[in-house]
Amino acid sequence: MSSTEPRRLILDTDTAGDDTQAILLAALSDRVSLEGVTICTGNVPFEYQVENAKYTLDLAGVADDVSVYEGARSPLLKEYDFAEYVHGEGGLGGELFPETGIESADEHAVDYIVRKARENPGELTLACIAPLTNLALALQREPDLPELLEDIWIMGGAVNTLGNITPAAEYNFWVDPDAARAVMDAFETTLVDWGVTVRDSLFEADVFEAVETMDTELAEFYLTITDAVREFNAQSEDDSLGADVTTQPDSMTLATLLEPDLIEEAATYYVEVDDRDGLTRGYSLVDELGVTDGVPRTRVVESVDGDRFERMMLDMYRHGDPHYSA
Amino acid sequence: MSSTEPRRLILDTDTAGDDTQAILLAALSDRVSLEGVTICTGNVPFEYQVENAKYTLDLAGVADDVSVYEGARSPLLKEYDFAEYVHGEGGLGGELFPETGIESADEHAVDYIVRKARENPGELTLACIAPLTNLALALQREPDLPELLEDIWIMGGAVNTLGNITPAAEYNFWVDPDAARAVMDAFETTLVDWGVTVRDSLFEADVFEAVETMDTELAEFYLTITDAVREFNAQSEDDSLGADVTTQPDSMTLATLLEPDLIEEAATYYVEVDDRDGLTRGYSLVDELGVTDGVPRTRVVESVDGDRFERMMLDMYRHGDPHYSA
Amino acid sequence: MSSTEPRRLILDTDTAGDDTQAILLAALSDRVSLEGVTICTGNVPFEYQVENAKYTLDLAGVADDVSVYEGARSPLLKEYDFAEYVHGEGGLGGELFPETGIESADEHAVDYIVRKARENPGELTLACIAPLTNLALALQREPDLPELLEDIWIMGGAVNTLGNITPAAEYNFWVDPDAARAVMDAFETTLVDWGVTVRDSLFEADVFEAVETMDTELAEFYLTITDAVREFNAQSEDDSLGADVTTQPDSMTLATLLEPDLIEEAATYYVEVDDRDGLTRGYSLVDELGVTDGVPRTRVVESVDGDRFERMMLDMYRHGDPHYSA
Amino acid sequence: MSSTEPRRLILDTDTAGDDTQAILLAALSDRVSLEGVTICTGNVPFEYQVENAKYTLDLAGVADDVSVYEGARSPLLKEYDFAEYVHGEGGLGGELFPETGIESADEHAVDYIVRKARENPGELTLACIAPLTNLALALQREPDLPELLEDIWIMGGAVNTLGNITPAAEYNFWVDPDAARAVMDAFETTLVDWGVTVRDSLFEADVFEAVETMDTELAEFYLTITDAVREFNAQSEDDSLGADVTTQPDSMTLATLLEPDLIEEAATYYVEVDDRDGLTRGYSLVDELGVTDGVPRTRVVESVDGDRFERMMLDMYRHGDPHYSA
Ligand SMILES: [Ca+2]
Ligand SMILES: [Ca+2]
Ligand SMILES: [Ca+2]
Ligand SMILES: [Ca+2]
Repeated sequence: MSSTEPRRLILDTDTAGDDTQAILLAALSDRVSLEGVTICTGNVPFEYQVENAKYTLDLAGVADDVSVYEGARSPLLKEYDFAEYVHGEGGLGGELFPETGIESADEHAVDYIVRKARENPGELTLACIAPLTNLALALQREPDLPELLEDIWIMGGAVNTLGNITPAAEYNFWVDPDAARAVMDAFETTLVDWGVTVRDSLFEADVFEAVETMDTELAEFYLTITDAVREFNAQSEDDSLGADVTTQPDSMTLATLLEPDLIEEAATYYVEVDDRDGLTRGYSLVDELGVTDGVPRTRVVESVDGDRFERMMLDMYRHGDPHYSA
Repeated sequence: MSSTEPRRLILDTDTAGDDTQAILLAALSDRVSLEGVTICTGNVPFEYQVENAKYTLDLAGVADDVSVYEGARSPLLKEYDFAEYVHGEGGLGGELFPETGIESADEHAVDYIVRKARENPGELTLACIAPLTNLALALQREPDLPELLEDIWIMGGAVNTLGNITPAAEYNFWVDPDAARAVMDAFETTLVDWGVTVRDSLFEADVFEAVETMDTELAEFYLTITDAVREFNAQSEDDSLGADVTTQPDSMTLATLLEPDLIEEAATYYVEVDDRDGLTRGYSLVDELGVTDGVPRTRVVESVDGDRFERMMLDMYRHGDPHYSA
Repeated sequence: MSSTEPRRLILDTDTAGDDTQAILLAALSDRVSLEGVTICTGNVPFEYQVENAKYTLDLAGVADDVSVYEGARSPLLKEYDFAEYVHGEGGLGGELFPETGIESADEHAVDYIVRKARENPGELTLACIAPLTNLALALQREPDLPELLEDIWIMGGAVNTLGNITPAAEYNFWVDPDAARAVMDAFETTLVDWGVTVRDSLFEADVFEAVETMDTELAEFYLTITDAVREFNAQSEDDSLGADVTTQPDSMTLATLLEPDLIEEAATYYVEVDDRDGLTRGYSLVDELGVTDGVPRTRVVESVDGDRFERMMLDMYRHGDPHYSA
Repeated sequence: MSSTEPRRLILDTDTAGDDTQAILLAALSDRVSLEGVTICTGNVPFEYQVENAKYTLDLAGVADDVSVYEGARSPLLKEYDFAEYVHGEGGLGGELFPETGIESADEHAVDYIVRKARENPGELTLACIAPLTNLALALQREPDLPELLEDIWIMGGAVNTLGNITPAAEYNFWVDPDAARAVMDAFETTLVDWGVTVRDSLFEADVFEAVETMDTELAEFYLTITDAVREFNAQSEDDSLGADVTTQPDSMTLATLLEPDLIEEAATYYVEVDDRDGLTRGYSLVDELGVTDGVPRTRVVESVDGDRFERMMLDMYRHGDPHYSA
């Protein structure tokens, strides 16, 4: 258990599938104090995402303390397709469509982020596990945002490896490449990409079996929301998937934020996102070769202790505390 | 030893470094009949490339039988930089600058390729281990070229992995992305990319030591031409290199052409090259996910038996025959 | 004098040079009720623009009734250069740097536009004589904005003619081509471009002489703010300028909004703005040929009664009422 | 009649419609010695173009002296559409499909241009009234071509005005924008664009009536080949056309080459062609503003004496000599 003050966190999410697990980690960990959840355009139709986030906060028992702020309902400029074929209709596996009755906060997510950052300079950590539209709009509104935020963790990009929505691109960056480009240009961030997700976050039969025996609400919820994605992965053409597995991009991002020594390897590179429509929309050039003039500014997580990450998740499902065994 | 008729081969090369080893394989193998060597803009200034090719053919004892045809001295449209920082000045390690006195053929390489293909429909194999300018120009001159050639092997591209000249691109495709795009669009080819080169063709200390003890002309030549590249690799930021190693993209391409069962894995994908200047110039989208509408047409070599490839090369250095142990 | 209800107007401006004349027209005409002035990134540093607008409203005697709302301080995504070489340092000819002491409204310009449009659906006219960043951001916040606004007039683009900041582009569209593209895609607008500005709005010696004899504050102000631009035009390489003339893009836009029968010719075309950086950044394709699939949606003002426009301006300088002779 | 030596001319054409009139001018004028006609991909299917050129040379009585060289059958890289909807099927109005039986030269057009230029350095004028594929390929083959040719006249581009195939582009540049870009970058040329064509080359009813009374083969031929284009223009959305008129881009280019004092205004600008697919494919940035860093190198014909041009054409139709009244 950490003796330090919990970090103050805002979580920006397009809540579907693994976003829920990231919300649970943020809500149930004592390492962070989750102050608000902001919703960004992404995986599934906006209203589903809002309800999914509220439902998950409620499941974690924090719905009264943590408000949901509705943000950008579309990318800055481009059109995109939802990923319901991955996460199931509605984003929670295809069978669960919450109607919580919980009210959203009045304030727009972008205004909320800007206000909180101005009121608490150097205090707030932002975790972005969605397309980066909200953060890009907050930056447009407040150019000093990079100085006002303490820390930014992002799930996005495919670092010199096969993407997931196209061969060139990962979904979050692809949905709003203009926002991704602007954010990667302006902020120093920690990046958890699709590559490390595939290498180090896969859950397989042993996890599924363990979870199936737990008989907790959280275990049950995990099995529900992974129903569609397991089928999707089983049929994937990606050689690294193509089996009954789940990927945990968003929850692994939160896990490394909560317990940074899960990170086995990381290095800081220049990153530039391709904002052009076409072949390479959303491609993230990560200059591992050091051949561009770009200043290295993005800490790329290259290797994560997958066993320990798995333990965190199982601890959470069984004991409601991701740091139970820590 | 193969009982079948040797395949009739034209080799298109920007002769520097490992191109020489590919020429040696083609000249010394009885599996192919090398009919001509065509020179394309690429690694080092054109006149060096021409002399390097002639010198290598002479070393293989075939300079009287195999003519060198000079081709495109620049890409179709774009400018580029030589790679002398990789291969040493002149392209043969930095100390060797041949002046053979051998005459080039009168015919332009592009005209030669077109004429030979028309005269021998369905008979000729083309191996391209250079930027694809000559082949693209031949296609422009003769739109039926895809039907006239029997087989095409290409070294180029970086298949969903880190490139070598930029993070997005491999050198041959980057030098002339317009040509690479046109060629990949029009022809069915076998592609040996930079990724499989790094994974399966690295030579290390054991090879260097073996070669050092051989005391043959070919062994000596290998050590000369790898002098600069070993130093370059030792200082590379690419995690897969960064040691005293050599890479054999061109010779591994020829080796797999000569002994196709070196190929452990291959699959046919849709490939599209990015011809735009900028971030992703020369990037090759290889649709492993099957998400584009493109028709799969390029057989991508995904895994090569590196031990056997090494044995071929050592057999050639020691015995002058790459198939000596075969 | 119009017997109809005055139109309710919000004016979005990057106040420098001719923007002031447009503000005066909007403030002094009884055909519109100017409800707010919003400031957008553009001609000169943002703080100058804000002060220039306040100074002009004060000159028109409406500073107490019409608030200034500060908006986007930078384009959506791209960088740009100020046009102080056209309008003089500070934007009012180079000698005048107002410090009005007037407070800006608390509300951000984008929030103001969105709120007013929601509160008054179908009631408000928006005149945009600046880069379109504020309007694009308002659209991002409120996707129904096209239905909520009654009418939109835009000064921008170069319709199949020479631009002013580059051969391909007019300044407002060039500064924020992403915003211009988004706005032209989403809204039905009336467009006053740089071409009709050059053809029909030039003021020459006779106007200058007339204004010089007037001895009114507004006449004096006009002479002050055109000081720099007259010198700039005299040295222009554009054959249509290259003399001691002024151009009135913004005031002519307002004039046609106030007295629509100034418009001699107009037609509705499909318009698409080039948002790519490079050669054609900010280029506006206006499909006069009807060859694209785009739906015609932009009413392009092709010819304006320049004499009558001149009379409006002279009436305003002399009598404080642009419709004095009408 | 000129007392100077006739200029030695190669004419590169995609023979359809007005190309024939340019061939007639070149063949019948004593100011030039037409040495060869090269055919480039363009207006109509290649075989039609070849036959149209031969037929026209035969009509001019020079088919025995001037050979037709077949060149590029497709652009360097991109696909395009024929313009048979302008010129009629086959390119000669829709009713005339010549079968001359004349043999083409053996040599490829590109090889012919390169060989002639090398053999006659500084002697040859090239007139290009087609997409610029042949010239770009010749440049690729012989980088010194800009020094070897004496003079180059090009019909192409739309100089800061409405194009003809798209709002942004003229047909020749649009068909092969890569070639156009390469040519405009490498060569000093005289450019006759679509704008000056529309402004100064229109033929109307008075010309048609004059030609109808002539009863010569050439007059008859003119009426035949303009049949389709007159109908096309009558229905054009371009305000400058939209009547029973013909445009003479190619013949006006040749006319100004033959009698340079037809040119009333010309200036030298930096020109850059947009080679990207999409909105502005084939757009020619002509830097009349002097705002780019590009070196002015292209002499743009801005105004032509249309009356005198008309007289040349009528002299040719009536007397077989375009300089009859000169
Ligand atoms: Ca997410
Ligand atoms: Ca090579
Ligand atoms: Ca303005
Ligand atoms: Ca033509």
